Amino acid sequence: MQIVMIDDKISPLTGLEPVYNDRGIYFGDGVYEVVRSYNGKIFALQEHLQRFAGSLSAIGIVNVDIDRIRSRVKKAFDAAGIANARIYFHITRGSAPRSHTWDVNLKPNFFLTVTQLPDDTEEKTKGIAVSTHPDWRWKRCDIKSLNLLANVLARQDAARKGCAEAILVDEAGLITEGAGSAFFAVFEQSVQTTPLTANILPSVTRSFVIKTAKNIGLEIIEESLTPQQAKDADELFIAVTTKDIVPVVKFDDKVTGDGNPGRYTKLLMEEFQLFTK
Amino acid sequence: MQIVMIDDKISPLTGLEPVYNDRGIYFGDGVYEVVRSYNGKIFALQEHLQRFAGSLSAIGIVNVDIDRIRSRVKKAFDAAGIANARIYFHITRGSAPRSHTWDVNLKPNFFLTVTQLPDDTEEKTKGIAVSTHPDWRWKRCDIKSLNLLANVLARQDAARKGCAEAILVDEAGLITEGAGSAFFAVFEQSVQTTPLTANILPSVTRSFVIKTAKNIGLEIIEESLTPQQAKDADELFIAVTTKDIVPVVKFDDKVTGDGNPGRYTKLLMEEFQLFTK
Repeated sequence: MQIVMIDDKISPLTGLEPVYNDRGIYFGDGVYEVVRSYNGKIFALQEHLQRFAGSLSAIGIVNVDIDRIRSRVKKAFDAAGIANARIYFHITRGSAPRSHTWDVNLKPNFFLTVTQLPDDTEEKTKGIAVSTHPDWRWKRCDIKSLNLLANVLARQDAARKGCAEAILVDEAGLITEGAGSAFFAVFEQSVQTTPLTANILPSVTRSFVIKTAKNIGLEIIEESLTPQQAKDADELFIAVTTKDIVPVVKFDDKVTGDGNPGRYTKLLMEEFQLFTK
Repeated sequence: MQIVMIDDKISPLTGLEPVYNDRGIYFGDGVYEVVRSYNGKIFALQEHLQRFAGSLSAIGIVNVDIDRIRSRVKKAFDAAGIANARIYFHITRGSAPRSHTWDVNLKPNFFLTVTQLPDDTEEKTKGIAVSTHPDWRWKRCDIKSLNLLANVLARQDAARKGCAEAILVDEAGLITEGAGSAFFAVFEQSVQTTPLTANILPSVTRSFVIKTAKNIGLEIIEESLTPQQAKDADELFIAVTTKDIVPVVKFDDKVTGDGNPGRYTKLLMEEFQLFTK
């Protein structure tokens, strides 16, 4: 008899609930998005859904109706009634006995949570410390997939060092991005960040930061940075959906500027809010 | 209210079953092994458990008692009563609301299946075709983790081309290994395979192939190969737990040797069986 054992419990394999056979758990075979709302309004849903469609297509999950995903997101958000919410959703290729290859007729699994965003006032007013970690991720970071073990290990390493984010450094010694954020440095009146041609996620928040920077007259330089250049920057910040812009005041052992959120970073944070109204 | 939505069904998040909150699905935050039995006897369990312990340790999943895992594997195998079985098991870091960082007190989740191995006579007697694919995997392939999307995409690409395995080629143009196997080439009386110093899995079957090759007087060369070198080889084969040695008779568009399993490959296959008694 073919059997399954969950912790110490043995059962016939035929009775296994589909959730245990999710290809998401066997292979990380799925893609996800995180969106947030500001005061009852979901921010940049269209941009996130567009990227989600791209991720699905890149890994060959077909027959997902993006309009239906949009309605689900809205329906769940309305049902939750949380003004400042974090909406996480993923789609996996479906549930099937473990096999690398898949049947194209598999029904994808959809999963979503709506939770209250934690208060980020302290991080945003005082800034955060970050630490570097080798970028161990795969070579398709343009796909927002469920293969996140490298991100998780880097973030935990940062937490152990008392840092809120890990900044990933590739084999060429260049910063790619944060474990869960885009990374930016300010030099005089220009903002520098990794180009999208590198192995990074096309971050939605990054694109709004770039618009914001242009709006306040800052130059944008899309060019990779080394950790040493980051240490020498006037200001540093990260950008992430759930918190938009967060100032960085320490990079590894080096205090950034005078140890307080930088002048342009604060201007960018203010200006960014115009998009969220 | 914080909520969860599974397909179209909305529920309160508080009632979510732990399996949906498995870090295995959110991040691929877990490690696995596959062992097999030959005629009622599990092969190389100790070697697999030792590697499993190494994988757990490498990602910081602590407090897993390997002796307990050994008993579970044996208990499940005995309960199944399958002579030629495939035993898959994984441990994830545990179930918790999605957050990159983890609580070290999280209880790991154990999951195992015992299934009947399919008949591999045809593959083993006629050989298989393989096709190359870029190696998109992360930089810690020495860890047998649940982050397998790169492997899955490569294997599906191979299947679309009528091939049974994808042979991964890194950015330097060198073969690393198969999507789910180790890869070997025979030149005259030597067997060449990727060194363990490359970004590959320390394959248990690979180590037995090396012993086998030495037993029959073949030289072992641990040096990476290019696809062109593989095309020029006298013989090719892959090694994988569930099937031990499988001859390769076609590499991309090039027929290997005379298109039949090679002489030394067949000798190795016979000799390998001595370990499985």
